[in-house]
Amino acid sequence: MALKDTHKSALHEKKGISPLENTDPKAVARFQQLRKRKLSAKTLTERIIKGDITLLSRAITYVESTLPAHQELAREVINSCLPYANNSIRIGITGVPGVGKSTFIESFGNYLTSLGKKVAVLAVDPSSSLSKGSILGDKTRMETLVNNPNAYIRPSAAGDSLGGVARKTRETIILCEAAGFDTILIETVGVGQSETAVHSMVDFFLLLKLAGAGDELQGIKRGIMEMADAIVINKADGKNLEATQRAKVEFNRALHLFPPKKNGWVPKVLTASAIENKGIDVIWELIRLFIEQQNSTGFFTKNRVQQQKYWLWQTIEERLKAAFYEHPEIQKNMPIELEALELNKTTPFAAAQRLLELYKPIIE
Amino acid sequence: MALKDTHKSALHEKKGISPLENTDPKAVARFQQLRKRKLSAKTLTERIIKGDITLLSRAITYVESTLPAHQELAREVINSCLPYANNSIRIGITGVPGVGKSTFIESFGNYLTSLGKKVAVLAVDPSSSLSKGSILGDKTRMETLVNNPNAYIRPSAAGDSLGGVARKTRETIILCEAAGFDTILIETVGVGQSETAVHSMVDFFLLLKLAGAGDELQGIKRGIMEMADAIVINKADGKNLEATQRAKVEFNRALHLFPPKKNGWVPKVLTASAIENKGIDVIWELIRLFIEQQNSTGFFTKNRVQQQKYWLWQTIEERLKAAFYEHPEIQKNMPIELEALELNKTTPFAAAQRLLELYKPIIE
Repeated sequence: MALKDTHKSALHEKKGISPLENTDPKAVARFQQLRKRKLSAKTLTERIIKGDITLLSRAITYVESTLPAHQELAREVINSCLPYANNSIRIGITGVPGVGKSTFIESFGNYLTSLGKKVAVLAVDPSSSLSKGSILGDKTRMETLVNNPNAYIRPSAAGDSLGGVARKTRETIILCEAAGFDTILIETVGVGQSETAVHSMVDFFLLLKLAGAGDELQGIKRGIMEMADAIVINKADGKNLEATQRAKVEFNRALHLFPPKKNGWVPKVLTASAIENKGIDVIWELIRLFIEQQNSTGFFTKNRVQQQKYWLWQTIEERLKAAFYEHPEIQKNMPIELEALELNKTTPFAAAQRLLELYKPIIE
Repeated sequence: MALKDTHKSALHEKKGISPLENTDPKAVARFQQLRKRKLSAKTLTERIIKGDITLLSRAITYVESTLPAHQELAREVINSCLPYANNSIRIGITGVPGVGKSTFIESFGNYLTSLGKKVAVLAVDPSSSLSKGSILGDKTRMETLVNNPNAYIRPSAAGDSLGGVARKTRETIILCEAAGFDTILIETVGVGQSETAVHSMVDFFLLLKLAGAGDELQGIKRGIMEMADAIVINKADGKNLEATQRAKVEFNRALHLFPPKKNGWVPKVLTASAIENKGIDVIWELIRLFIEQQNSTGFFTKNRVQQQKYWLWQTIEERLKAAFYEHPEIQKNMPIELEALELNKTTPFAAAQRLLELYKPIIE
């Protein structure tokens, strides 16, 4: 076309118009560079390793993308980042809505950076999507941490399956570690399955609780308490102080009812006031002690290797199941078998047998 | 062959030798009949429905058999027994060794038959095999129940996988119900996974515990306590009485820490002395109350349907996994991927991807 604009960017200066004061040529060049789509895996990796947060974010976007080209690029970047990863402490943080997770993470994160640490905050929340407002999505809740140069906050990846979100988060951990983040905090809301996923990707699992209001009598999701390496009773401030102490006794008693953990760790109950920054240092001291102990017994590495295997098997089994259940022939016949089951006209094993026989010749 | 004996059975009278007094011709005929291999599925079913214990046992042997002909026969019998099944109360009983499970089951079983019930006692114990002495294998432990005409005791099926043992037990339940047993007790030792399996095939799940000796501070397997519909503290007798009362308070407190069950049932803690036959009637009263409540809310049937679906999916997924992991190509390549994982040279997802790609073209 004759009128074709040779300048692709809207940021480019137009002929005959003198640049505005704030269109600093260096800034323009940087913006143009950033907007270029085709950075190679090699460049991305090199810049991530140097701690380039903008490109870290972009790489994570590729990890989360559904476009095959992005996925391919993400795989390459992750692979070349691997030698630089795996050298952080990964901490999972869970608790029901209202327990003060954001405030806690902000207080904890700022404390960690004050010790010279670099902190990445991720989230696993399969129920959300970025557009619908995921946890951590509303970064205004963590204003001081967002503006902390040694902290990096990334909302939960969108996804319809927990498996998908979990994979993306685990790959994001690798990228963050390669970018120099030595402490990874992974937040999750208490929706049952996502805690198990987070528990399987962290070294230390922390359960936030509230005292009073009958909270110690309910609201603990099945199995969550048994996963915890520490229970922190938050909002230990003001009128809440006494109730917090009572809750501490109660939870300590409950923890003792569980069988000892294989790694030899005895879970602790602590109290904290995230809003008053109280008790945060003691929590970190406990985690340090945990890491030290786990390293000395070899369980730290053992646990990580075990987690890797877990995710390998998990991924394989999810795909095998998806291929089966999503097959048109199975989708057609499953309701028939389920109805027969409900009417006690067949057994689960006979029904399974028929469906598997049906599946056998049709899988390629 | 000239010398071929036309009489296949050693029980047959030999010519010229007069029968011994104890070889009653009717008994001989019955034995010969029983030893005939080829009873049809129809005959087996008819006799089972009439309550023939000997043929019930034989059908269960077919269920447990690995011979294809037996399996085929078992499938037919189960199918024709289905309309007569599903009309019992299924109770799971678990507890660590030493808690007094056998004595409890004997006491409980005899109490139930005194109420006019017909009681079948089964077991799920994947670690055992019949020859190696399974739980319930040593029937002398339950002498009075063994000799009780309204009780039927069957040791755990042998099997290398929990899935296999669980399937056999579920099918055995169907046969027992068709034979008129209206109360099925399923025993399991505390080995973690088998409790989950038993929990998924019963209406009511009972956890046996002991007081004292620090028992309430340990030995509760992860998740087991949350599954329990009732905790019975056994050996509430003699010097143990006081400790039992303390343990009851302790367990009650612990149970309250768990979230409410979806079916609306609040688990109870009871005490009993199986050896002195104390507290047994109260346990049955509680179970009756449970059944009544669950029936009135519709949860009883809902739970059974849910269990049927659980076993359908469980069976399918186990077979899909077995086909994958047992394939020679996967067995060859899995160790390679696992080693790469341990050395952090790949991610679980990339490794899974490669193994799945490998599997795709080779499955028929």
